[in-house]
Amino acid sequence: MKVGVLGGGQLGRMLALAGHRLGIRCRFLEPAERPPAAAVGEVVRAAYDDPAGLDALADGVDVVTYEFENVPVGAVQALAPLVPVRPGPAALELAQDRLAEKDGLRALGIDTADYRAVGSEAELNRALAELGAPVVLKARRMGYDGKGQAIIHSGADIAEAWSGLGGGPGIAEAFVPFDRELSLVAVRGVGGDLAFYPLVENHHDQGILRTTIAPAPNISAGLTERARAYVRAILESLDYVGVIALELFQVGDDLFANEVAPRVHNSGHWTQDGAVTCQFENHLRAVTGLPLGSTEPRGSGTVMTNLIGSVPELPDLLADPAARVHLYAKTPRPGRKVGHVNVAEQPR
Amino acid sequence: MKVGVLGGGQLGRMLALAGHRLGIRCRFLEPAERPPAAAVGEVVRAAYDDPAGLDALADGVDVVTYEFENVPVGAVQALAPLVPVRPGPAALELAQDRLAEKDGLRALGIDTADYRAVGSEAELNRALAELGAPVVLKARRMGYDGKGQAIIHSGADIAEAWSGLGGGPGIAEAFVPFDRELSLVAVRGVGGDLAFYPLVENHHDQGILRTTIAPAPNISAGLTERARAYVRAILESLDYVGVIALELFQVGDDLFANEVAPRVHNSGHWTQDGAVTCQFENHLRAVTGLPLGSTEPRGSGTVMTNLIGSVPELPDLLADPAARVHLYAKTPRPGRKVGHVNVAEQPR
Repeated sequence: MKVGVLGGGQLGRMLALAGHRLGIRCRFLEPAERPPAAAVGEVVRAAYDDPAGLDALADGVDVVTYEFENVPVGAVQALAPLVPVRPGPAALELAQDRLAEKDGLRALGIDTADYRAVGSEAELNRALAELGAPVVLKARRMGYDGKGQAIIHSGADIAEAWSGLGGGPGIAEAFVPFDRELSLVAVRGVGGDLAFYPLVENHHDQGILRTTIAPAPNISAGLTERARAYVRAILESLDYVGVIALELFQVGDDLFANEVAPRVHNSGHWTQDGAVTCQFENHLRAVTGLPLGSTEPRGSGTVMTNLIGSVPELPDLLADPAARVHLYAKTPRPGRKVGHVNVAEQPR
Repeated sequence: MKVGVLGGGQLGRMLALAGHRLGIRCRFLEPAERPPAAAVGEVVRAAYDDPAGLDALADGVDVVTYEFENVPVGAVQALAPLVPVRPGPAALELAQDRLAEKDGLRALGIDTADYRAVGSEAELNRALAELGAPVVLKARRMGYDGKGQAIIHSGADIAEAWSGLGGGPGIAEAFVPFDRELSLVAVRGVGGDLAFYPLVENHHDQGILRTTIAPAPNISAGLTERARAYVRAILESLDYVGVIALELFQVGDDLFANEVAPRVHNSGHWTQDGAVTCQFENHLRAVTGLPLGSTEPRGSGTVMTNLIGSVPELPDLLADPAARVHLYAKTPRPGRKVGHVNVAEQPR
């Protein structure tokens, strides 16, 4: 089988590595030179909206998916008559616009922070008054790893925050005084079959995920049930096929949805070494119509730590004989994710 | 880092897949068209003894290894001035000739079946008389998966067995009335550091490995100690670097060495899903001078089953959500290994 992938970054690379085991080969559409996926699959080098590139991607593949939610919806719409695209454009549209995302979550009865659309400095002022400080101002589009975000503690912060947005439309969200950040990674098959990985606990620094603890400790059955209900509602409303991640804030017994990622997700990387089937294999199984693999965790737990900015010397990384190292073949750069390490936790 | 590999079959393919995670890329020298490794690394298509092919393999790689022990020793000798070759030619010489192998094992004090070199039908007759029926006649060179072997129950079988050998030199071995077949996979680093996977139990059919149970049940500490002492003696006598497998017959509390494989081995495939570090990664770590990874088994055990001759439909293979499937992208053919499946055992 052959799978076309929009995007050729590390998520594409790890999809391809998981695919080879099952005889599934990936072809990538990627504008960048020598992307991480190039070593493990064929790359069509073109812009995401280049019609010739899209044709070359679609030629002879069984299905197209994406590893990056900021591909133009038009690209997916152009592919749709040629080849099945999973997940479909509705998931992209939801995830690309933080306002549409929050509206969509609320429409499904999912709790989120209060928020206001802001199209001008005056609207931002009004949002701050209505929501109460602090508020988080985010660009509606193209934000990731904390980029395009600012925290506004008082009216004095507004001018700078607004100009940081570059005039683009934004969304102002009430700050959620969370106990911790969690996420739920799930997968839905072509036939509607569902499997959930356990809730995991995430630690960010400067907007970038640093560490995931899987499963999250001290999770009540009720919390798991609520998180699954949220994700199930999203998946079913979109008739979604593939892996999805929902980022959540926990406040006591409450869960507030923060962000939907319609793809494999950094907070699911622990599954490569800590679950029976990793998220990458399950995404490929789902989009190709194969049965889903077990999402059961293995052992007593796994801690995933991102390597950010630079890769330590390999002998140092491997000094712990139990460390499971995953490198992305990316040029190091401050703030860039270049790899991750999974370590099994000692039994608690 | 870059590693050159003599041979581009499924073992090379799985080496490359393990390598990508660590940023190690493999280049293969392989005479066959579209070998299994082609999807995951660069292939130099040439005969193993083609000087231009060997130069192309060596160009810019940090080390050369092999995934197939029947490469010409001359090829390894030609590479040696250009690039480190690990394991070295002594291991190949030992493993390529069943007589040298048995002589070498005996010289290290390792128990084996009784055996005689046979160069003629008359010598085979004499060997049968001296060893007693049944004896196993094997070609000294190029045998694998039971090819080039015959069991001789009486003098009446001799003419056919001898002609089956094609006149080449052979070795006649006393049949060992074994309780079961075991193997030990181990790895030795550049600095002499050693790590052992647990003893595993192997089931063959028509000379081809069908199933490995890992760890082997009911293994006494003494048996493990003896098997490790055998392997340690072999590794140290050859100043060996990389993964090695020793096939053994168990007879009560005794262990008889049967065959040495100076490479990753089919009876180690369970480690991909059942050990902290798989044999493929550990081989690459060893030959590139990196620290070895933990060889500890995970969970309560793993059963590896080879797919031989043909690949079942993927949905059928994946119907058990816990099945871990590994396919080799080989054209199916009777008796050919085309993949394997690892399944975690329920706790005993």
